[in-house]
Amino acid sequence: MEGNGIVLQEGEQYEPCWLRYEKVEGYYQNLSLFSNIVVKGASPVFHSAVEELSRGISSILGIQPKVVKSVEKSGFILLGTIDDEEVKHRFSSLREFRQMNKEGYTIQSISFNGELSIYLVGKTDKGVLYAVFHFLRLLQMKKDIDHLSIFENPKNQLRMINHWDNMDGSIERGYAGRSIFFKDYQFIKNGNRIKDYARLLSSVGINGVVINNVNVHEAETKLITEEFLSDVAKIADIFRAYGIQTFLSINYASPIQIGGLSTADPLDSSVQQWWKSTVERIYQHIPDFGGFLVKADSEFRPGPFTYNRNHAEGANMLAKALQPFGGIVIWRCFVYNCQQDWRDRSTDRAKAAYDHFKPLDGQFHNNVVLQIKNGPMDFQVREPVSPLFGAMPKTNQMMEFQITQEYTGQQKHLCYLIPQWKEVLEFDTYAKGKGSQVKKVVDGSLYDYQYSGIAAVSNIGDDPNWTGHTLAQANLYGYGRLAWNPDLSAEEITNEWVLLTFGDDPEVVEQVSQMLLDSWRIYENYTAPLGVGWMVNPGHHYGPNVDGYEYSPWGTYHYADRYGIGVDRTVRTGTGFTAQYFPENAEMYESIESCPDELLLFFHHVPYTHRLKSGETVIQHIYNTHFEGVEQAKQLRERWKRLKGKIDEKRYRDVLERLNIQVEHAKEWRDVINTYFYRKSGIGDKYNRTIYK
Amino acid sequence: MEGNGIVLQEGEQYEPCWLRYEKVEGYYQNLSLFSNIVVKGASPVFHSAVEELSRGISSILGIQPKVVKSVEKSGFILLGTIDDEEVKHRFSSLREFRQMNKEGYTIQSISFNGELSIYLVGKTDKGVLYAVFHFLRLLQMKKDIDHLSIFENPKNQLRMINHWDNMDGSIERGYAGRSIFFKDYQFIKNGNRIKDYARLLSSVGINGVVINNVNVHEAETKLITEEFLSDVAKIADIFRAYGIQTFLSINYASPIQIGGLSTADPLDSSVQQWWKSTVERIYQHIPDFGGFLVKADSEFRPGPFTYNRNHAEGANMLAKALQPFGGIVIWRCFVYNCQQDWRDRSTDRAKAAYDHFKPLDGQFHNNVVLQIKNGPMDFQVREPVSPLFGAMPKTNQMMEFQITQEYTGQQKHLCYLIPQWKEVLEFDTYAKGKGSQVKKVVDGSLYDYQYSGIAAVSNIGDDPNWTGHTLAQANLYGYGRLAWNPDLSAEEITNEWVLLTFGDDPEVVEQVSQMLLDSWRIYENYTAPLGVGWMVNPGHHYGPNVDGYEYSPWGTYHYADRYGIGVDRTVRTGTGFTAQYFPENAEMYESIESCPDELLLFFHHVPYTHRLKSGETVIQHIYNTHFEGVEQAKQLRERWKRLKGKIDEKRYRDVLERLNIQVEHAKEWRDVINTYFYRKSGIGDKYNRTIYK
Repeated sequence: MEGNGIVLQEGEQYEPCWLRYEKVEGYYQNLSLFSNIVVKGASPVFHSAVEELSRGISSILGIQPKVVKSVEKSGFILLGTIDDEEVKHRFSSLREFRQMNKEGYTIQSISFNGELSIYLVGKTDKGVLYAVFHFLRLLQMKKDIDHLSIFENPKNQLRMINHWDNMDGSIERGYAGRSIFFKDYQFIKNGNRIKDYARLLSSVGINGVVINNVNVHEAETKLITEEFLSDVAKIADIFRAYGIQTFLSINYASPIQIGGLSTADPLDSSVQQWWKSTVERIYQHIPDFGGFLVKADSEFRPGPFTYNRNHAEGANMLAKALQPFGGIVIWRCFVYNCQQDWRDRSTDRAKAAYDHFKPLDGQFHNNVVLQIKNGPMDFQVREPVSPLFGAMPKTNQMMEFQITQEYTGQQKHLCYLIPQWKEVLEFDTYAKGKGSQVKKVVDGSLYDYQYSGIAAVSNIGDDPNWTGHTLAQANLYGYGRLAWNPDLSAEEITNEWVLLTFGDDPEVVEQVSQMLLDSWRIYENYTAPLGVGWMVNPGHHYGPNVDGYEYSPWGTYHYADRYGIGVDRTVRTGTGFTAQYFPENAEMYESIESCPDELLLFFHHVPYTHRLKSGETVIQHIYNTHFEGVEQAKQLRERWKRLKGKIDEKRYRDVLERLNIQVEHAKEWRDVINTYFYRKSGIGDKYNRTIYK
Repeated sequence: MEGNGIVLQEGEQYEPCWLRYEKVEGYYQNLSLFSNIVVKGASPVFHSAVEELSRGISSILGIQPKVVKSVEKSGFILLGTIDDEEVKHRFSSLREFRQMNKEGYTIQSISFNGELSIYLVGKTDKGVLYAVFHFLRLLQMKKDIDHLSIFENPKNQLRMINHWDNMDGSIERGYAGRSIFFKDYQFIKNGNRIKDYARLLSSVGINGVVINNVNVHEAETKLITEEFLSDVAKIADIFRAYGIQTFLSINYASPIQIGGLSTADPLDSSVQQWWKSTVERIYQHIPDFGGFLVKADSEFRPGPFTYNRNHAEGANMLAKALQPFGGIVIWRCFVYNCQQDWRDRSTDRAKAAYDHFKPLDGQFHNNVVLQIKNGPMDFQVREPVSPLFGAMPKTNQMMEFQITQEYTGQQKHLCYLIPQWKEVLEFDTYAKGKGSQVKKVVDGSLYDYQYSGIAAVSNIGDDPNWTGHTLAQANLYGYGRLAWNPDLSAEEITNEWVLLTFGDDPEVVEQVSQMLLDSWRIYENYTAPLGVGWMVNPGHHYGPNVDGYEYSPWGTYHYADRYGIGVDRTVRTGTGFTAQYFPENAEMYESIESCPDELLLFFHHVPYTHRLKSGETVIQHIYNTHFEGVEQAKQLRERWKRLKGKIDEKRYRDVLERLNIQVEHAKEWRDVINTYFYRKSGIGDKYNRTIYK
């Protein structure tokens, strides 16, 4: 075990990730202010803030600070909220101070007679905790702290992590070990790791966690019963101290399965009453319970359709039960026909979410939020943005990303997703004319939503490095930072993470940053080309299989024949999906001339000889990117090898091992894809590189 | 539960299969002989014979016979061996009587003063039991018994069933429920069903059973230890009473895994000693233990290769340990490189068994038998015969068939395999010139093998009807009959089974027989065409997936591109596999003109426009057979529907349900295969039937 930030618990060996708090030597000269932490408040969150700050200071600077209620003279770090008189007196004249939202904070350096003091001030105690993490980040990155005047408000209200953890301890689409919450259908008793996880999440501003899988099986259905609520409450206690609300995924058929009712019809009064009582019971255990995440009428999960009710009726019933307590319903829009006939060319899975939900705009209660996956399909390496974003002015919407790399290399391949998410968030929907970016939809500003934000599916498990691939920690870090502030650039976020995780050796910073920033495009290069997607082995979704989903019921096809490939989703000759976008985007995608190359096969069926904007034909593009992708994967490995000796041996070897796998599997991707298309098209590579016949 | 043959045990509900012993009314006039069973011998097998005969007579004729040691006057059924003085006196002048082999028997009707007596005489008690089953078969089929003079010797010495049962209760490639031997890593205590299974096997002449999977996992490795040997012995007791020897599959790495040794090297004396002691211990528990079945150095199983020893060295070491007790080693030849690179066109899995074993001819001990799968690949719906048959004059060989329908519809589809096996057994290897059929290799007559015969992988489980698909019972029945006498025609066997299982209504006999006899060709029609094979979903092997194994490491490819399809296995331009056959067959397969249509793509890569002997092109043949195959599957269902009311409702519905599934899944096969090849070839159906684009 390298690093010295996290105190390891007995028997547990895991990495501190970006909370390493490595010793910073010889940089900060004026150390006296670190000796006194003045705490102007008391609460579990305050306690966490003080504990974290003490831990950080002692680890980074070797000073054990005193924690006091007040001091006589300057030279201290003060933690307090805006309610504190001294704080109010000092800062209330500042405009930004008055504009702090309930999770906002400020960090201010005040010099008096040459004595520096730092004020870490939140609107509430949560802001104080965020300020502490921010301040410690600055220390670790060796930033000048003499002239700080920082104001931060999170841009998104809901900044959530969804766990797809099952009570048997498995994690659906998990690639980093087993659950840290559950084992053998029980809660894991030792909460140490959960606390350290809460610290990691809180340090990047996450404020909500759903602890169980959206696919709620028999065991997890009982999480809302007395059998397990006290266990859930213990986890909620841990998270609460880090400003994180706990949510549960629920089974829509709970009234039948655990309630003894014969129906789960949302308009049935006994069902309504059952949920009302259930919610009351939950809030008796967890007074600040967040609410429910619901996957209904999707992939064989039960839902209101069984009773001829629509999604609004289904969600509103739960919303009413939660409303008195301030809880919310997060209702997933991942609803489509997963028993499609591959022979049926008229049904288009991409259209499903919009078709299901758009007509219901205005019918959802204001404590319901629709959670929409970034793309219309399912977390492919490349998809267009879901046309549902911005299409429902009167319905709260939030984004769902996937940190766990289901379709993007399963944490064996390096695939840093921040650049992808940035593209999604910056995408202009034109919902209210130019400048209606997705980020403005999900931060609630475009339509003034009551609830909105971003959720993402966790990539962590009980592996010692949390994420399987050590560099995949960057996706969790970056997700949190982006959820806090979507305006941050991928480069800024990357730079922070590398500095915090590997230190400030310039060669390390340069190489690791470049590896991360290049990796998504590289993965795209050697996998599914031009936005077509789904060329993976069915079920586990790892490795190339061009026809793997081609004759399946999942609505996921590429229609490659001997002449061409791609899905015609145009209005003129195809499924009409393009019409779901606002006109500017609809026109862009509808026209083969204006459709971006990287999404060409998502929207159009073209001959292999079709010329891209790059000037290459589609078939030559496929060959080029697949040959190049492998070379780029090798370059990733070469970059990493340059860092030998500059990174602790354990992490160096762990990453190298994954990069070796990546190179080998990239070759498999290259050769399968190239051979498949060579066999089908009969067209050779114009550069005569090796394509197996 | 219909039928009245098998006494059902408490809580257990399962069918009697072909041992129904339905009441035969008004056919047999002279019933007095059935009142007296004269038993001239005593042994567990004799006991079984008497019990079965009594049960059969009372059920078929409603008479409860007396069992006596002798009678004064004629009019009886006598059970005895050739050692009996009266028997010897009466029959020893007959040439056939003297030619009985140790499992042979005779059935003789003797009329004296108008009083009929029947002699059921075996060379040993096993023959007596076989004679009883034969006689009961005749009664059930309403055969004339007044003038019987039947002599039977089994043609094959080893007539075995291999179970791929695991101790957790699962069955590898099982499609009829869980194991009847094992549950939760223990032996199932209640032996009733095993006894009834022994009756079924014995009734068709099976004389050996391997009770555990050839893939021997951790748990089953311990079957040869004191922990489990007394359980194995109990099963052996049950089987022994029905003339069946018990065998075990062993783990070649046992000396390491349970013996505490550091090696399993067959030339290491401590290893040899360990096996010697182990075998001694087994025989203390089971004095007539059959021996070991070994899957070594195949599909990740351990074997002698680890120690740079060859298969002969590996097998002989075990053979030496077994020899003193009369046990044998059955060594599987299913050895190939399962980590092949699909890009590598020079390696040909079809060649592997011959390449591995042929050079070792003469090096195996005479109590080793090589068990060779019928084809060079793996139980596909259509393969050529393995060229290894007949290629090793100095090495015992036996056949391995697969009754369980891994690649032939998994007991959801009707696929009666007797016609396939008949083709294999009748195939002329030309090993010693014309007339060197496979059946003469495996019955030991061609080269005078010390041990030889046929084994097959069981299709039974704990389903109430034993085999999932009721009509799949016919495959087990037919296998036994064919192993006893490969000269029986498919029609004879089929007729027997239908009469025994469904009675003698002429419509039932005609329709069911025709369904069975047509079914293999029908399944072939709508699945993989022209011998190419492997167009199935990987792993579970059910349903169409043309490219499912195309880019895999398993050596199973079809090489379809936009111009053509097939594997070139010729000497002239391909892998050279054809040279493994004796010249007459090698020439037949080498030449595209003489290669039979149904194996064309196994041996040759041809354009889709290649004209078959039928006059159709390959592509049109693919379309024709796939359209026809579905129509034929529908006809199977129509035939069955005509039998409503003529077959008990339970079995009628069970079969109909499977036939409905078959029709639906046949359509899926048809459409996937046709679309795949249409997309690839660009050639339409000349009859303009629907092919989805």
